[in-house]
Amino acid sequence: MKATVLVRPKDGILDPQGEAVGGSLRRLAFPVTQARVGRLVDLELDTSDAADARAQIERMCAELLANPLIETVEIQLEGDD
Amino acid sequence: MKATVLVRPKDGILDPQGEAVGGSLRRLAFPVTQARVGRLVDLELDTSDAADARAQIERMCAELLANPLIETVEIQLEGDD
Repeated sequence: MKATVLVRPKDGILDPQGEAVGGSLRRLAFPVTQARVGRLVDLELDTSDAADARAQIERMCAELLANPLIETVEIQLEGDD
Repeated sequence: MKATVLVRPKDGILDPQGEAVGGSLRRLAFPVTQARVGRLVDLELDTSDAADARAQIERMCAELLANPLIETVEIQLEGDD
């Protein structure tokens, strides 16, 4: 099963990379009022059960993929929009 | 209008960060067969027209946000899943 994990800085957490991107886009004359930069992890999991996959990914986030103090996590499972 | 730009390394492009993440997850006993790491940019745009927003974002990707030689781009507009 394929899944995508979206990791974003929480609201209120300073995001210098996002500020730099937003500033650059505005200098290029794009009408951007805010930009925030996060990361994504595409995973291929050796399970075909969506509930199991989601539970595994939540543990992965807690143990490795994200910092719950400053980041939010969104899990997108394939065929599950 | 809010939008999210997902930037991923193309298939076949080496992704050492993804390999490190995959290896770490396997060492933690997660059943991960592949991991690829990309980035995301959440944008707030000063337009309410979806077609205009998408066109602007495509230009942003070409000019700043992504490298078309090695990266693919997916644009998600709010309320447009």
